Amino acid sequence: MSHKIAVMAGDGIGREVMPEGLRVLKIAAERFGIALDFKHFDFASCDYYREHGKMLPDDWRDTLGGFDALFYGAVGWPDTVPDHVSLWGSLLQFRRGFDQYINLRPCRSMPGIKSPLADRQPGDIDFYVVRENTEGEYSSIGGRMFEGTEREVVIQETVMSRIGIDRVLKYAFELAARRPRHKLTSATKSNGISITMPYWDERVAAMARTYPDVTVDKFHIDILAANFVLHPDWFDVVVGSNLFGDILSDLGPACTGTIGVAPSANINPEGHFPSLFEPVHGSAPDIAGRGIANPIGQIWSGAMMLEHLGHEDAGRAIVDAIEAVLAAGPQQAPLTPDLKGKGSTEALGKAIAEKLAG
Amino acid sequence: MSHKIAVMAGDGIGREVMPEGLRVLKIAAERFGIALDFKHFDFASCDYYREHGKMLPDDWRDTLGGFDALFYGAVGWPDTVPDHVSLWGSLLQFRRGFDQYINLRPCRSMPGIKSPLADRQPGDIDFYVVRENTEGEYSSIGGRMFEGTEREVVIQETVMSRIGIDRVLKYAFELAARRPRHKLTSATKSNGISITMPYWDERVAAMARTYPDVTVDKFHIDILAANFVLHPDWFDVVVGSNLFGDILSDLGPACTGTIGVAPSANINPEGHFPSLFEPVHGSAPDIAGRGIANPIGQIWSGAMMLEHLGHEDAGRAIVDAIEAVLAAGPQQAPLTPDLKGKGSTEALGKAIAEKLAG
Ligand SMILES: CC(C)[C@H](C(=O)O)[C@@H](O)C(=O)O
Ligand SMILES: CC(C)[C@H](C(=O)O)[C@@H](O)C(=O)O
Repeated sequence: MSHKIAVMAGDGIGREVMPEGLRVLKIAAERFGIALDFKHFDFASCDYYREHGKMLPDDWRDTLGGFDALFYGAVGWPDTVPDHVSLWGSLLQFRRGFDQYINLRPCRSMPGIKSPLADRQPGDIDFYVVRENTEGEYSSIGGRMFEGTEREVVIQETVMSRIGIDRVLKYAFELAARRPRHKLTSATKSNGISITMPYWDERVAAMARTYPDVTVDKFHIDILAANFVLHPDWFDVVVGSNLFGDILSDLGPACTGTIGVAPSANINPEGHFPSLFEPVHGSAPDIAGRGIANPIGQIWSGAMMLEHLGHEDAGRAIVDAIEAVLAAGPQQAPLTPDLKGKGSTEALGKAIAEKLAG
Repeated sequence: MSHKIAVMAGDGIGREVMPEGLRVLKIAAERFGIALDFKHFDFASCDYYREHGKMLPDDWRDTLGGFDALFYGAVGWPDTVPDHVSLWGSLLQFRRGFDQYINLRPCRSMPGIKSPLADRQPGDIDFYVVRENTEGEYSSIGGRMFEGTEREVVIQETVMSRIGIDRVLKYAFELAARRPRHKLTSATKSNGISITMPYWDERVAAMARTYPDVTVDKFHIDILAANFVLHPDWFDVVVGSNLFGDILSDLGPACTGTIGVAPSANINPEGHFPSLFEPVHGSAPDIAGRGIANPIGQIWSGAMMLEHLGHEDAGRAIVDAIEAVLAAGPQQAPLTPDLKGKGSTEALGKAIAEKLAG
């Protein structure tokens, strides 16, 4: 039985890194005897928007709903389509429409990638950010009043539900319980945001009672962000709301130096809908079209996808291949310019594919 | 004519660092011929709450409204009073009640304080975070429904007004215009938070047209936080909403290593109400009572207060004295344990006061 994968390259460097993601997945499929069935779509891109006046066809739920996973590049081309239009019309639709309520991002130092933090070596930083991915601060409720006048006011509601909070906490507690350090950190701001965040804290405290083996702590988001810089070794699994998780899952990879190569998974854990895998980086209009984008985020996202589909060994092998090529360094391996090498997107993708093929 | 200063030490280490803040202010007053008239209050502390069931007396507006400035220590004692009660009952009341709509925090590397970032030297990082301090995400509008059931939901509104946004932007543009690099960075999240943040962006764009000499850029908060770590030298003045400013003004000092010594000002620029000056650090229950808290945040806040009151030379002299003592290092100066020294709170305060006295 083959896994059906919907491929959407998106915009900008998304189109350049996607072929490398697919190249490596195909090698993994061969080596581990996995049947992958790819189907390509041109929607969920700003080019599609220019032609059709929308980011997705109206029947996108039916078109994509039957796939086992979505493999996405990067979306956004702000010169022609404002970000809140392109993102809300694609990625954020998928997350909600397919109830991908977990956003999972590893923050792990990688060999050959220097952390911007002093005295941090590969191995020092290794944690996950688990982000609520469907509600919270990313609501679409609210509006504007007294438009165009001095009295103009905008209001937007943050909406958190017990169901929404409890399910992301459960995922995070389970993940922490499986990790060696059994540690969960909750991001809050209950001292300032006085209605939603105290409720978040309550739910964390309630669930902590049912996981006595997991050590739980919490920090307000301001000092938590500071502690990512000051004490990144403190963290094992960090859980946060949609906005706090968004911030922390960029800041974490920044602290490891891996922001250009970090992957992410948007997961519907029950498998009622396809989950989506995409690099953390965006479409990078500034370097798009030059063939120098780093494809590792896309390739690593492919590894997370294989793990999600039940092929942990194949996922692990891809990450090992990435690490081996990174460890070889810019002299021995065709690393891209962001990694101080002279390699192209394609050359780096091929090097990882070859390493994986063995 | 003397400046009337209301002194509130607050909780925990607030009570230990406040005497040192006052010690240094008194020396500055002598040296520069400034008349300062201090009056002490025990409210705005959790001890007061325990006795009176509230953080502030009912007539606090009248009691404090006639002062020229408020000099605050640190507030919070979560073991007995939940943070959202103590903070909303004191600091956040002052900010709103006295319309202190600017929160200003320098992020500056200091001699003798090592940045946790690799390869960053004193002088490399020098910017201000200007935070909106009265509206935005810190609203008190919202509530809870279906309490105690599976359907439970909490809602909190973010409220931004044109007046509220424009006045903080104006302050930030003016500050950027006065600084050598003329650069302003706006923190946004208009790609995800689709109602309030696009409006924020609009107001920034509108005001940018009236400040042609200021270079303006914007980043989404996730990548902006990452760039604080990756490229702290990019920034000159950074402006953000109440929540984004809160996060960035902890993260910035963390990147310079100065989080334990950073000051902040809560300003009502028109002077209709007293402005408030307080260290960035909190009440630190873990080290309270031991006489080892670092008093520099309190002392530096005093310097910001004197500048605000029109005594720039005196403020500058205090900062010079702080820098001189820090530069002397833990062998020569009685630095506190957080700075790898063996000095007490009092000894460090005295050393700075002596340096200032000349
Ligand atoms: C204590 C808390 C309410 C406060 C805030 O979030 O404003 C603090 O973090 C600060 O930045 O002054
Ligand atoms: C592009 C944007 C809407 C998105 C988000 O904020 O969720 C991105 O930053 C991410 O983290 O995937």
